[in-house]
Order: sequence, then C-alpha cells, then structure tokens
Amino acid sequence: MKKVAIIGISGYSGLELLRLLHGHSEVTVVGVYGTSTVGEKLTALFPKLQGYAEYAGLTIKQFDAAEIMATADLVFFATPAGIAAIHAADFIHAEFPVIDLSGDFRLQDPSQYEKWYARPASHAQLLAKADYVLADFDTPKTAYISNPGCYATATLLSLAPLYKESLIQYDSVIVDAKSGLSGAGKKLTDSSHYVNANENVSMYKLNQHQHIPEIINKLMTWQEKTLPIQFSTSLIPVTRGIFVSTYAKLAADVSFEQVREAYEKTYRDSYFVTVCEQGHLPDLHHVVGTNVTAIGLGYNPLTNTLTVVTVIDNLVKGAAGQAIQNMNHFFNFDEKAGLDLLPIL
Amino acid sequence: MKKVAIIGISGYSGLELLRLLHGHSEVTVVGVYGTSTVGEKLTALFPKLQGYAEYAGLTIKQFDAAEIMATADLVFFATPAGIAAIHAADFIHAEFPVIDLSGDFRLQDPSQYEKWYARPASHAQLLAKADYVLADFDTPKTAYISNPGCYATATLLSLAPLYKESLIQYDSVIVDAKSGLSGAGKKLTDSSHYVNANENVSMYKLNQHQHIPEIINKLMTWQEKTLPIQFSTSLIPVTRGIFVSTYAKLAADVSFEQVREAYEKTYRDSYFVTVCEQGHLPDLHHVVGTNVTAIGLGYNPLTNTLTVVTVIDNLVKGAAGQAIQNMNHFFNFDEKAGLDLLPIL
Amino acid sequence: MKKVAIIGISGYSGLELLRLLHGHSEVTVVGVYGTSTVGEKLTALFPKLQGYAEYAGLTIKQFDAAEIMATADLVFFATPAGIAAIHAADFIHAEFPVIDLSGDFRLQDPSQYEKWYARPASHAQLLAKADYVLADFDTPKTAYISNPGCYATATLLSLAPLYKESLIQYDSVIVDAKSGLSGAGKKLTDSSHYVNANENVSMYKLNQHQHIPEIINKLMTWQEKTLPIQFSTSLIPVTRGIFVSTYAKLAADVSFEQVREAYEKTYRDSYFVTVCEQGHLPDLHHVVGTNVTAIGLGYNPLTNTLTVVTVIDNLVKGAAGQAIQNMNHFFNFDEKAGLDLLPIL
Amino acid sequence: MKKVAIIGISGYSGLELLRLLHGHSEVTVVGVYGTSTVGEKLTALFPKLQGYAEYAGLTIKQFDAAEIMATADLVFFATPAGIAAIHAADFIHAEFPVIDLSGDFRLQDPSQYEKWYARPASHAQLLAKADYVLADFDTPKTAYISNPGCYATATLLSLAPLYKESLIQYDSVIVDAKSGLSGAGKKLTDSSHYVNANENVSMYKLNQHQHIPEIINKLMTWQEKTLPIQFSTSLIPVTRGIFVSTYAKLAADVSFEQVREAYEKTYRDSYFVTVCEQGHLPDLHHVVGTNVTAIGLGYNPLTNTLTVVTVIDNLVKGAAGQAIQNMNHFFNFDEKAGLDLLPIL
Repeated sequence: MKKVAIIGISGYSGLELLRLLHGHSEVTVVGVYGTSTVGEKLTALFPKLQGYAEYAGLTIKQFDAAEIMATADLVFFATPAGIAAIHAADFIHAEFPVIDLSGDFRLQDPSQYEKWYARPASHAQLLAKADYVLADFDTPKTAYISNPGCYATATLLSLAPLYKESLIQYDSVIVDAKSGLSGAGKKLTDSSHYVNANENVSMYKLNQHQHIPEIINKLMTWQEKTLPIQFSTSLIPVTRGIFVSTYAKLAADVSFEQVREAYEKTYRDSYFVTVCEQGHLPDLHHVVGTNVTAIGLGYNPLTNTLTVVTVIDNLVKGAAGQAIQNMNHFFNFDEKAGLDLLPIL
Repeated sequence: MKKVAIIGISGYSGLELLRLLHGHSEVTVVGVYGTSTVGEKLTALFPKLQGYAEYAGLTIKQFDAAEIMATADLVFFATPAGIAAIHAADFIHAEFPVIDLSGDFRLQDPSQYEKWYARPASHAQLLAKADYVLADFDTPKTAYISNPGCYATATLLSLAPLYKESLIQYDSVIVDAKSGLSGAGKKLTDSSHYVNANENVSMYKLNQHQHIPEIINKLMTWQEKTLPIQFSTSLIPVTRGIFVSTYAKLAADVSFEQVREAYEKTYRDSYFVTVCEQGHLPDLHHVVGTNVTAIGLGYNPLTNTLTVVTVIDNLVKGAAGQAIQNMNHFFNFDEKAGLDLLPIL
Repeated sequence: MKKVAIIGISGYSGLELLRLLHGHSEVTVVGVYGTSTVGEKLTALFPKLQGYAEYAGLTIKQFDAAEIMATADLVFFATPAGIAAIHAADFIHAEFPVIDLSGDFRLQDPSQYEKWYARPASHAQLLAKADYVLADFDTPKTAYISNPGCYATATLLSLAPLYKESLIQYDSVIVDAKSGLSGAGKKLTDSSHYVNANENVSMYKLNQHQHIPEIINKLMTWQEKTLPIQFSTSLIPVTRGIFVSTYAKLAADVSFEQVREAYEKTYRDSYFVTVCEQGHLPDLHHVVGTNVTAIGLGYNPLTNTLTVVTVIDNLVKGAAGQAIQNMNHFFNFDEKAGLDLLPIL
Repeated sequence: MKKVAIIGISGYSGLELLRLLHGHSEVTVVGVYGTSTVGEKLTALFPKLQGYAEYAGLTIKQFDAAEIMATADLVFFATPAGIAAIHAADFIHAEFPVIDLSGDFRLQDPSQYEKWYARPASHAQLLAKADYVLADFDTPKTAYISNPGCYATATLLSLAPLYKESLIQYDSVIVDAKSGLSGAGKKLTDSSHYVNANENVSMYKLNQHQHIPEIINKLMTWQEKTLPIQFSTSLIPVTRGIFVSTYAKLAADVSFEQVREAYEKTYRDSYFVTVCEQGHLPDLHHVVGTNVTAIGLGYNPLTNTLTVVTVIDNLVKGAAGQAIQNMNHFFNFDEKAGLDLLPIL
C-alpha cells in the first residue's frame, strides 16, 4: 500500500483526487495540504465527507516538503498556477515522486511560461527535470510528472493520429473547444457566477489560452511539420466535461478510410480511449465520471474536411484521473486501478 | 462470485445497477433482459459502453425465468410498474432470490395497489411472499425483496426517529419532496421535455403519489398512532437527487435536544445515514453518486415546528444502491461492497 | 412623460427596472446611479446595451439627492440593504417620490429591522413616513413607497384570502419557498458559484429570513389572530422564479369550495393575479418575464390540509415589476403600462 | 390596425409570435390554427395564458385558407416542414401575404429541397413565387415571404461582410454552430429529453443540416466565388440561443482592420445588428429575448485566421422576431414595432 499526499485539497482537482483514490485499493491518502484553509478539519471544509470515518482524522496542513517526504511515497500538486513553481524544488532535488496537475512545469522554456502564464517561471534547470506525460501515450521517465492540461489532453488525443501519420494539411487545423464550469475552478468570478453562466455560452481567452503552447510543443514531438493551430475555448453551462470539435483538411491522397484506420490503430491498445463506431459521435454523457476519452469522426468530401469530436471529463481525464493513471504507471500498478468506472448520468 | 441478471436494463435504474455492480467485487452481471430492445447488443443501446470489453458480449434478451434461474443466483427487476406483477410468480414459487425495484410488491393489499397504481395487482398470496426491506432498518426475511420507492426511502429515513420514539404530533406532518428528472424515468413525456423542465419547477400528483401508501404502511409498523401525512412532490431541474423538507410539531414536553439525540441514536450504526452537525443542513451535492442519506435538523420555538431536511440520490439510495445494499445483506457480503463511494460534483 | 432615476443600476433589480421601463411609454430614465461603478458608461458596464442608442449617453453617477430631485420626477432605490437607510432622508423631507425596492423601510420598528437585518435602522420618524405597498392590494398613501420583498410578495398573495376571510387554523401554516439564483443577487458568493448551485438544491436562513417580519406585519393588518408561521427558503437551480408551496389546515366548518371562492373573489379584479382553474397548479413557466402571480389550489380531506402553490418572477413581480406597478398607481397611469407582457420560455 | 392569423400556434415559433405580437401596437391576432389541437381553447392548450382576457375567446381552428383570407391581412406559417408545402398554394395564387417560418419555400429548386428535407417539395412554379428575405439585408419583393432558418440567419449575418467585400479565402470557412433546445422544437425525442440534454453537449446532422443549402444559395448572391463551407451544429443545454463560431483565413493583402471596418460599414444602419467593440465577444445573454444579432471579431496572425462570434435568440431573430421584422417592412411599419426589447436575464 502506497501513501500519498495532496497539496491543494480545497480545489476541484484536489477533491476529485480524493474521490477517485477512495476507490483505489493500492493507495492511501495520508496528508492533505492547503493554504487559506490550513488548520481546518477536512470534514469541516467539506461537510459532505462527515459520514466517512477514514477522513475524520484529516486536518488541512501547512505545506511542508520534509514532512511530506517523510510520510508519503508520492505527492500530488493540485494547485493553481504559481504554487508548484515555488514549492517543487525540494522534491525535485530529492527525486521524490511528484505528480503536478498545475501548468507550472508543462513548459520547459521559462520565457514561454512567462509569456503565457504572466507570472515568474521556475528555474530552467528545475523545469528540465519535469516530464510532460500524456498518459495514453507516455510513461513517466523521471520522478517529476507534469500532468497535461484538460484542454490539451482532449486536443492532443483528438489530433495524435493525424500528426503521427501525416494525414492532414497542417495549416488548416481549427480546434473549437468547450468546457464546463468546473474547469474554471473554485475561485469566485463573474463568469462563474450562476446567473451569468446559466443559459449562456461565452468564448474566452481567444488565441491566448495557456494550453496552446503545451499542445504545440507536444505536436512537434510527433510531427516536425507542425504549424500553429487555431484554438478557441468557450464556457458551456454544465459542471463537468470538455467537448472539442476539431476540423482539418486531409492531405493530398489521404482518404477518410485511412484516417479512420489510423485512429483505430493508434488507440487499439489504449484502454481509456474509445474510437466510436462509424457514424457515431460521442457526447459528454459518454465520459462523465470516467477516465475515458471518446472520439468520433466525420468527413465532408465537398470541403475535404475531417471533423473530429472528442470528449473527456475535465476533472477525471483532464486532471485527477490522468494523474492517477500516471501514478499507476509510475508505481507499476494495473493501469485501471481506481479508474475502472462506468459513466454516470 | 455471485451471478446476477437485470430485467429492465434500458431504464435508468437498470443502467445504474450495471454501473454500481461494475465496481462490486463479488458479483458479475451475466444476463440483461428487456422488452422493446430485445436482440440489441448492450453496446448498441448504450454506445457509451463500447469501450468496456466485459459488456461487448451482452445482448438484451427476452425475459425467461427458467433461463435466469439456471444461469444466475439473483435477479433484479428494474422495470416499470406492472412487469414484475406479471413475471415474478415463477421466481416466488421457486424461492429464487429477487430484488424488485418496482412498486409491484410494495403493497401487500391488492386493492390498495390497484387504487394507487391504477392497474391490476399481483395475487394476494404472491404479494404475501414479498418482504418490503428498507435497507438501513431491515434485513431480508424472504427471497423476494421489495425495494422501497425513492420518495418513500427519503421520507421514511426522515421520519423514523420521530415515529419510533413518539416525538411529534402525528396530525401535523407535512412532507414537501422535490425530485430531479431521472426520477421521472426514461419515457418521453411533456414534463420531461428539456424545454419544459429547464428553468422550471412544478408540483405533480398532489395527494395522489403512489409512494404515499408504502410510507404510511411502514410508519404504522413503527408507530401505531400514525395518521395520514401531507405529502407533495415537485420536479426540480436537476438530473439526480431528492430533497425532502419535512415539518412536524413536537409532542408535548419534547425538546429539540431530545429529537436530535433520537436521530443520532437511531443512525449511529448506519454507515449510509449521516446526521449533519448542529446548524448544518445538507444539499443535494452531499449525496449525489452515493448511497448516503444525509439529514439535517432545525427547530423553530415560535411555531414549535421541527424542520428535517433529507437528501438522497434517487438513482442510488432511491433505487439501485439500496437494491445492492439489500443484496449485500442477503448474501452476507460487506454492506459497503460496491457502494463505498464519495459524492461526485 | 415622467422622468425617473435609478439608484443601484448595476444590480439585477436595477437592470430589470431599465429593461421594463424601456417598454413603458410614459416614462424616461434620465439618470442612473451606482457606487463602485461610478464614472463608467452604462454601455461599458453592460456591453449588451451597446446597440441601444438611447443609453449611449448614460454614465453612472455618484448619488446626489439634490440633482435627482432637480432632474427627475421619481427615484427608484434598487440597492442592497443599508443604502436607502442612509440616503433616503432628503427625499423624505422633500416628500419627493421614492420607490424603494430594498428592505430598508419595510419594517417601521427600528429594533425589528436591526434584529432581522443585523445593521442599523433608519430613524423611526423617517420609517414612519414610508408606506409598505403590496401593489395588488394597496395604493400608495405617501410619497415614499416601500416595495415588498420577493418572498413576501409571493407568500402574502398566497395567504391573503385565507387570512382576510378567516379560513384556516393560524397555528398550522407552513410556507416552503424556493427561489432562483437571481434572487441571491449579483454579489459573488459560494452559494451562487455555478458549480455549487448547478444540479443542487439547498435550504438557507432557516427561521431567519428577513422577509418573515414583513409577512407577519402585513398578515396582522388583515387578521388580528395571526400567529407566527413556519417559513423556509431554498435555492433552486434556475435564474428566475419563486415557487411557494403553502400548507394550512382549514378552520372548522370551512370547505374547500369556500376557500376556492374566496380566492376567486379576492383576485377577480386583479389583472396581475391569476387563480388557476380547478385541478391545475402553476409552474414557473406560467409567469417568467411577467408581473403575474399565479395561484393553484389543492385539498386533502384526509389531513384537512389545503395546499396553495404560488409562483412569481422574482425580478418582475418580486422587484422591478411591482415597483413599476406601484409607480403606475402613484402617477395614475394605466396599471398595465410597461407590464403587459406574456410569459417567455 | 392589421389583422393576422397564425398557423401552427402550438409550436414554439407560433407561441413566440403570439408573445411578441402581444406587444405590437399595429397588429391583432384574429385567428390561430393547428392540427392535433383543433377545437381546444388557446387557454386550455397554454394554461399560462388564462389570465389574459384578449385570448380567452380564441379557439384553435382547422386550417381554412378562404377563412383566413377573409378575416386577416396576413398569415404566418409557424409549422413543421411539409405543411406550408401542402397548404400555401391558395395564398400564393391569391397573392395573399404570407410569412412562412418553415423551410418549405426557402429552396427554389425542388430537387434541392427533396435532397435536404427528405420529403416532397412544393411545385417549382409556386416555389418561384416565394422570396427568401433576410430581414437585415432584404425587403420583401413578393407577397410570399420565406423567413430564413435560425442557423442560416446567424451564419449569414456572421459571413455577409466577408463575402460581399471579398475578404477571405472561400475554401477555408468553418462554422461551428451551437443551439439551445427550443431550436429542436416541441416534439418529444430522445435528444430533447431532459435527462439526456442536461449536462450534455452533442453534435448532430454533421454535414447534413438542412440549413446548409439556403446558406450557400444566399452567399452565392453576394459572392460568385462562394465554395462549400464546413458547417456543424451542436445542441447545448440552454433553452434559447444560437452561438456561432466562424473561422476563415483572410485573403491575401487583407488586414484585420479592413475586416472590422467592413463589418461596421455593413451594419452601421442595421438597428438589429450590433458589432461589438474591439476586444469584446458577445455571449448568449447579449441577445436573449431580443431580435438583435451581436457579432464579435478576433484575429490570429499566426494562423491568419479570423474568428467571428455571432449570437442570436433562435426564437426571436431566428424565427418569430425576424418574421415580425419582415412583416413590419412589408406593411411599412416602423421596423422596431413589437421588437424594441432589451435582453432578459
């Protein structure tokens, strides 16, 4: 039985880690850490945990790297941007296992981070120790695992076969991504106020979303001809779920059948990726509550345009679930441990 | 490993049974049965199951009691009213274990059933073989377990300590219950059409809800002074959840402290019932996705009125979860098997 | 053409006043006032007004009673609690027409206000100048019109015939009221955060809601035997609408037919109150976007309990619409001016 | 005062016509026609109209062209596909004014209609009498006005300046359109069942939506170089609203400034089209309840891609509102009559 700690328990990703790890037979949560909630009992912060005896004893603690390393086998950073950048150094120096759900170590070039996140980056030599691990493609190569962003995960899984197999025109890619409100986090903002978000859709951070560079960096590792992509994000009035519509023109002499085969081949051995049957496009209900990515394909011969519809649960595959999948790989657990879940209505 | 079959797989309760049993380590689903969907592959009916290899081989079969008894150890009826009434006889004669999520065997008096359900009742001698099992209070005494209704479960757990301990004036009880739309089932109706239900609340079946008699019957077993209660049901625009506000005047010389102690005592050993701390009332998020019933209490000395707020997930505690809890008791499994879940956002 | 000013334009009631007055042929909005938004153009605060030429010139101004009295014929306070208490004095001394949508002048006893609002009351002699005007029953007697609260309006219209005609047992009244999120205002709070409010229902301020005293005070004017009532408020996941379920035991020798006749008689000449036909209960869609109150009735002879279901749009009848109805009465306009609207889906 | 009749009163567009015409000072609804609801009183079909005396006398009548022409000055077809195709002939022969909200006369080539609508077209000589009138660009040239589709309206207004002014590469256009559930109509379907639509997004009719040909036909009138466009439609969990994200690559030597100027010039005199200020993108709340189209622009120099975000209320601008705007033009009323509305929360 491995012991883990969670930093950032009060946020949605932290709580989702706790929820999923509750069903993981190989792992126990031994410590939870926060900032504004330090000293509170976990059951006071989340009254809905009052009935669970195993959490009655947990109190939210002040971050303490030495304590974590002394009591746990791995730590999750489920923190807003900027926290891991400050606090990760001790773990990295000690080569203590970290899974970082934040964006702080996703970009290895400090100037790129500072441009897109508008805050100071961690040191380049620390950034270099982190491994960006897209769990359905990669296994961890170092102890510091940088967990991909929610939009980035959906977009990369949507595009991977196209880039790996050179199937499209790289200047034609349009990604129209929509996310539920839990993706906007727990912080109170005008755009996440119920009256503003309900019965509404809004596009935000046009051409400025911080997941763009991690997407491009990863695509480059698959396809050197990668060009900038057009990437938009909209808020939709649901709690959970990312729905990505991707459009691209097929390369010369590439048929839709080839494309379909490439998706099926790429994901044949991926337990958590489902390529839908011909003619079927997935909806959010396909994946809510699960670590699954579901992908559907369509093609318009009049415009030579491929449509790829990809859905994930932003809190599971887009955050805590992929983090646990990465942990499972890291500890050589069954990949499905804690994640073998059917979608919930 | 026990083998179970599900009749009525295409409905919400049937699918929820499948979802919860997916995480139950002692049980396998070996057969799924339907009516209008007979012959379809389960993954065709529910494309979201396409990625789960264990369900690839399941095809929805025509009901066949002999086959079920030959291949399974227990069967769930997750069917609309009227189906179990017709098809349960063979199981009852064979004393084969059945958990019936429908209302067909909840009322042992055929005339009472026919009055409230407006359809023919099963035979009185068959009805007499069924045991109405409220899982947090009862353990099965016969092989035919009649699973309580969703509203009835929330209401009975809300009222139990008051009736058992003679704490209230029995002519003063008002139950204002609200349910999400999954409680209205999969059948297409005007009231479950999105545009009608969204941004709306409506009260329905005033004084005519078919869960009223099972509530009264059960209350009578706890308290012979039971009188008719006022019971209202409203639809609220959420998918899952029942929220019950209960009001009652305290009996003479009964204090709020006594009431609180009665709740705490009654539910001290109930893993799935949480009595919230003083001053805290539960909301639906407390229980969504879990088998938990959460209860909060308030008292107004000016009106001598107790307010009890009780929440459940109608598809879990109100249907599939309680059915599994009853199955766990029946098979002497750990009560929590398959049901040890944290609430999901 | 009368000229009006709005104080508190940035809140939901202020904007709703603007929206409704836009369709009022006898009134022009000549000034808009705020606090944190002073100096902003109205179209900058609300980009959705950019296309409306008549608002292009409006800039949000600092409160200035003298200016308002010099430029307008009437002023609306659409402000949070505490603002009118501070700023109303000049208007009252000048007997300048005010319609105050806040709670500041609804309770004429300062100590009652301070108990329920937990903030300093205005002076008793100023409070005495205010007239609490429930628009479907009262016409303004002074220049300072205190507009009833949203819950109070729905509850009072729900109960009026019962109290006026002595039809019920006064110790048996239970009001279970539910409101959409716009009732919680524009302020960012945990309970109005989308992820918290969506797919949820929660009861709040149990026995402590500040509308309780204005309800009781008004009931007392109708019925001297009035006793405390049991009053609960819950948040439901809709933007607009209040749904009130009221329960009461009929007095001895009172029949349901008498009750129905009392409602029909009471509201026969009320354009904005609809008593639904026998057997029909209203839902929120009945009234959204209108100034209408719709009331449905049911009776349970087993419990001798009357159920009254009353719905209003909290921003119209519960705030801006009733304020305009009061203004129409004050200025002797057609009562329907600006308010002759069909419900919107 | 003109008199109008509505065919298809029971559908969402028919009821929305009634709602908007209620506020139109120059028009009275003198007859309402249906099919399955013939003989019902309007207030029985819509209990929420019970309080409105002006509708108490209206009973839903069987279609009768002669009666309509004898009693009204204009008729609206607010009917599903196929009804106007059958019933319009008499009106066309008599040159009686019709505004047809259905798709039956939008495509003048019968074979094109039959391909996209999968049902028999009206006769070619009748189709030739119909005029497709996009209200912000066109005024009616004949008595038979074919009102554009909801998606088509939003898409055409989104693209007009680009095609009229030759600003883009015509093979690069991607339209990702999302609609609320009222766009799916009143018919009960699985996809409009609350539990299925709530907390979900789904793409449908990929490359097969019947609004595609009317879009292309209209674009061709503006720009002969028009090529097929990529057009997707998704359902989003809101009642009202269409949100269209459009992407296109700018033509050689065209700057974003030129594009912005083209939009501002094109819509300078359009009361019902708002081009948002630089940096602002509209959301659905910008237009809900109004006849306004709001358009926002963004540009990505890395991909040379223009993003156009366009929002409308599908029931107003996308149906009943544009129909009234067309009627206002036809009768030479003020264009804003009945449509001068602020957005509703």
